[in-house]
Amino acid sequence: MEPSKRIENVLANAVALADAPGCPPSLAAAVRYAVFPGGARVRPRLCLAVAQACGDDQPAVADAAAAAIELLHCASLVHDDLPCFDDAATRRGKPSVHKAYGERIAVLAGDALIVLAFHTLTQGAAAAPQRLAPLLMTIGRSVGLPFGIVAGQAWECEARVALEEYHRAKTGSLFVAAAVSGAVAAGAQPQAWRVLGDSLGEAYQVADDIRDVADDPALLGKPVGQDETHGRPSAVRELGLEGAVARFRELMDTAIEAIPPCPGAQQLAGLIQLEAKRLVPREIVRHAA
Amino acid sequence: MEPSKRIENVLANAVALADAPGCPPSLAAAVRYAVFPGGARVRPRLCLAVAQACGDDQPAVADAAAAAIELLHCASLVHDDLPCFDDAATRRGKPSVHKAYGERIAVLAGDALIVLAFHTLTQGAAAAPQRLAPLLMTIGRSVGLPFGIVAGQAWECEARVALEEYHRAKTGSLFVAAAVSGAVAAGAQPQAWRVLGDSLGEAYQVADDIRDVADDPALLGKPVGQDETHGRPSAVRELGLEGAVARFRELMDTAIEAIPPCPGAQQLAGLIQLEAKRLVPREIVRHAA
Repeated sequence: MEPSKRIENVLANAVALADAPGCPPSLAAAVRYAVFPGGARVRPRLCLAVAQACGDDQPAVADAAAAAIELLHCASLVHDDLPCFDDAATRRGKPSVHKAYGERIAVLAGDALIVLAFHTLTQGAAAAPQRLAPLLMTIGRSVGLPFGIVAGQAWECEARVALEEYHRAKTGSLFVAAAVSGAVAAGAQPQAWRVLGDSLGEAYQVADDIRDVADDPALLGKPVGQDETHGRPSAVRELGLEGAVARFRELMDTAIEAIPPCPGAQQLAGLIQLEAKRLVPREIVRHAA
Repeated sequence: MEPSKRIENVLANAVALADAPGCPPSLAAAVRYAVFPGGARVRPRLCLAVAQACGDDQPAVADAAAAAIELLHCASLVHDDLPCFDDAATRRGKPSVHKAYGERIAVLAGDALIVLAFHTLTQGAAAAPQRLAPLLMTIGRSVGLPFGIVAGQAWECEARVALEEYHRAKTGSLFVAAAVSGAVAAGAQPQAWRVLGDSLGEAYQVADDIRDVADDPALLGKPVGQDETHGRPSAVRELGLEGAVARFRELMDTAIEAIPPCPGAQQLAGLIQLEAKRLVPREIVRHAA
């Protein structure tokens, strides 16, 4: 099955838990709304791409890991958009969860998505139970204390921000988890996949900073100029647009070079090259030069 | 080791993750603040009491389950206290997390506590890995969609509240998880322990309603009269004080009768009797009569 179809299927099955009679209807609707329709699903695609490069001997386990990672990402978006943080009115081209369902349901939907991620992973790993604990540790670490996305978001509340720790925690950690858990889900050695995840995470963050100043808000699905508005650290503010584009390309090259020997290495390199073009389209590169 | 000592130890070890250099300091402090000093630790004490009644052959696993349940309970308190919900100024006799650390850190501390619960459980279950998945399913189900505490809290956002579903999800679910996971952690059959957890959960909810109208706010560690203020469903509003006290005693009796045959049945019954006196002290019973 095609990866994006696998991802949508496993997410739909996970979210179906909300359809049980007796589930509070607003919460159920908000959880579904936060997950569908999705964004680029870049983290679960990375997870499945690594699993496939490693042979993908237990597709249900890889699917569950990919879904858990995407559910945790969706949870972080819902909470980041809350009035006390970004107070974002839109997300993925539609009203943010708190605009559509109210702040209380948005808090709870984020919580429910975190729990659902661990539930989905546990269920999906039943086919290879010895892989469950390492997957839980890998994915849990990428979200929680001391270095996961929650910690990354908390750096935004500190007077002094350690820029590298901020980026690594807020964006990088879940990319590392996606790459590493793709390998673990397929029974491969995880350690070698860290650099790939780390480089892609940083590249993705730089691309996000670039598109925050150079993209069309309609295509982006959210307002542009948010980094400037919120005084957030940004690669463009630090390096200029041209410098940021150069940094992005360097990081994507590092990611490709970091692919460890595996059956699907070449195909994975091709996927990463395609992803680079999607993340920073040619027009922006031209505009920056 | 004495149960409350075990609980404080395993919670301290779990929260120590926040001490890593590189963890954002406000988040680390808020997570610690939300867990220590604790309340009555009633859920983890129930978990350990059931594990001990079942032989407690893997104390590290029982400790991890107990800690996970308490961390999830702390997370729910932090989020329930947020301005968009109860806007509670105090909790456990001190300023609530959002009053002490701000709303943003309170949102993130709740998120971090949820993740930490699953992390702690995974680490602690290493001694008996075949018990990990059932513990994760039991505990995850008690928190998430469709019937866990997050769902319970979401019923407060609905115009029409299904009262029994509300109570069962908001309070009962974590008590059921505590009892059942105590049995699972000790390698016992879980199913027989559901009724005990369910009855104690409802009894605890009724006791909470009673103390909301009849207790001293200094002893309670939070303001009284909150149910009336927030128009929340309450056993006292429904049955009167005397009726609520009678219902409480009936539920505690049901819990004791529900103890399945196990090595420590008698000791567990004694613990539940003690707990009944702690939850609804004699003066309140006299006051109600």
